[in-house]
Amino acid sequence: MSQRVGVIGGGQLARMMIPAATNLGCEFSVLAESGDSSAKLAATTVGDYADVATVLAFARQCDVITFDHEHVPANVLTALEDEGVVMRPAPHALRFAQDKLAMRERLHDLGVPQPDWARARSAADVDAFIASHGGRAVAKVARGGYDGKGVRFISSSTEVLDWCESSEDMLLEEAVTFRRELAQLIARRPSGETAIWPVVETVQTNGVCTEVIAPAPGCEGPIEAMAADIAQRVAGGLDVTGVLAVELFETTDERIVVNELAMRPHNSGHWSIEGSVTSQFEQHLRAVLDLPLGSTALRGESVVMVNILGGPTTGTLFDRLPQALERHPEAKVHLYGKSPRPGRKVGHVTVLSDILEDAVAQARGAAGFFQD
Amino acid sequence: MSQRVGVIGGGQLARMMIPAATNLGCEFSVLAESGDSSAKLAATTVGDYADVATVLAFARQCDVITFDHEHVPANVLTALEDEGVVMRPAPHALRFAQDKLAMRERLHDLGVPQPDWARARSAADVDAFIASHGGRAVAKVARGGYDGKGVRFISSSTEVLDWCESSEDMLLEEAVTFRRELAQLIARRPSGETAIWPVVETVQTNGVCTEVIAPAPGCEGPIEAMAADIAQRVAGGLDVTGVLAVELFETTDERIVVNELAMRPHNSGHWSIEGSVTSQFEQHLRAVLDLPLGSTALRGESVVMVNILGGPTTGTLFDRLPQALERHPEAKVHLYGKSPRPGRKVGHVTVLSDILEDAVAQARGAAGFFQD
Repeated sequence: MSQRVGVIGGGQLARMMIPAATNLGCEFSVLAESGDSSAKLAATTVGDYADVATVLAFARQCDVITFDHEHVPANVLTALEDEGVVMRPAPHALRFAQDKLAMRERLHDLGVPQPDWARARSAADVDAFIASHGGRAVAKVARGGYDGKGVRFISSSTEVLDWCESSEDMLLEEAVTFRRELAQLIARRPSGETAIWPVVETVQTNGVCTEVIAPAPGCEGPIEAMAADIAQRVAGGLDVTGVLAVELFETTDERIVVNELAMRPHNSGHWSIEGSVTSQFEQHLRAVLDLPLGSTALRGESVVMVNILGGPTTGTLFDRLPQALERHPEAKVHLYGKSPRPGRKVGHVTVLSDILEDAVAQARGAAGFFQD
Repeated sequence: MSQRVGVIGGGQLARMMIPAATNLGCEFSVLAESGDSSAKLAATTVGDYADVATVLAFARQCDVITFDHEHVPANVLTALEDEGVVMRPAPHALRFAQDKLAMRERLHDLGVPQPDWARARSAADVDAFIASHGGRAVAKVARGGYDGKGVRFISSSTEVLDWCESSEDMLLEEAVTFRRELAQLIARRPSGETAIWPVVETVQTNGVCTEVIAPAPGCEGPIEAMAADIAQRVAGGLDVTGVLAVELFETTDERIVVNELAMRPHNSGHWSIEGSVTSQFEQHLRAVLDLPLGSTALRGESVVMVNILGGPTTGTLFDRLPQALERHPEAKVHLYGKSPRPGRKVGHVTVLSDILEDAVAQARGAAGFFQD
């Protein structure tokens, strides 16, 4: 028998692990939130990831547990650990992806470059930080935010009074003046072996990733080296197992600072499904199963991934496939089996080309057919 | 809602459609022979494909039916057709993949080049054919053979006396003197649109495919054109929908003749999973769903696929993964979730490279770790 990987969470990340598990020949199960989840093909269990008994029963059928998201509560993780369940990443690593304040503190200790930041509770804390950072700041809830939710660009504590009233501390960060955003993906095995993809450029719109270009244009040399070095230090320093995505700002003075971390396959790595010899999903499963990591070489000169956000207001996503495929025979369209809703990530398109501009045009063109 | 494809048969071909269905976003079900089939992840029903009621109940839950193998009996296909079930390929096409005598007759009518052949029932028929073809022949059962089973190289009717006693006619073919074997894959939509991959070289050992090289070396020009022309004529002439594999002999006098047909994804096309912009599995689903076909361009200069046959005599296939992946980080290993058994196809390895010899060495090297 091969080993069984269990994924907690049935979103598109779990869904996109299905092809990788199918190819590698491992067994694969998902604990999904609903019977109609994105990963429903592999969803052996439907249940609440916050319920200890549910998660424990699921985990007992698996050899190793990994995650589609960061929202599994600490008490559940502790209960699994007490039962001897193997989790990759382990809770002692995962907490730095769950808690942005813990992440900032740990990265500080590791000497990893990051924006100036502070822990804040009161309006006075917030206004003091704003005053010492040019009249503005980025405020973030420490836990539970994603895709721009739980993040506010502020110039006064009045904009986060609700968070000041919360019992949880918030994170304040300097509003970094950046040239562009990058992401560095790395995979790490329990043994410490790592594999790193080329650093990519990510384009965010309203806090949500909309496009990724691999490799990031013009990154050869110092930028590439700094991004790789940061990812290696974070992956090792936090004892990450599986895929780690390090979201980065490239500042106008050519520094690289860490914006966010995700300890799982990440939107900034979807391009790797077709664009790399080893996709982030296969690499994640390899790392989680403690198998040797695969080549991260690119399959083309330029790879462009464009998200499909929201979807059409009339008909289904699937209805739009014929036109998109007809016009773009080179495009790889991925639909996640999710219902369209404004701003929701419901699919993506990847195109490989020798010419970056061609890949961008093709990927945007195909993705456009799925939106009104 | 998207459309649901139902596959009859739960072998590795159905299994390898799972990643394609996941990416395209169609719904996907399998009617499998057992609860532990290769395609068990998507096996919504376990039951007998020869039982009309079982297959009908399965088909009613699907928008279109396709096949993992050619063994569904005619009475089942007729029952489905009478119920209005959409099958791709349709029974009127599929019969030419099910019955080698019907295939030979139809290809003759289409003027497609093929070995000299005859229908035979008696020992006298057989000996007459042998006498007029240099003292030897290839005898084949018309139905149910695969992977070298149901095929005998003979020089006397005494070697097929059991088949002479059968109520079914057998097929006799001249033993073609060939330089090598080729395979031409093509996909065809109900509308008639086709997409064709580069012709590939296949290596058979004891009647079983062991290696495939894409594209077939030195095939530019007439050979390539003849192979493509034959595939187009067969696909159109038989009204095939889905993927059609045409197995070919390249004769020593540089002709191309048809050996066998398969109307489904085929071992000679597994290289396309990583090696082509559109894999045979995705293309099959596109054709079956009547979606526009994708680019069949190659992702590398040379693509080599090596089958894993039989598997290890000790331990499991999965146990061998660490060594194979460690030594061959560029290799894409596919395990089918099947138990090892002598001669059984249990997985394959694909490698892309700019240098053919390198791809061959890597693919053979990685595959070797799974066998004793």
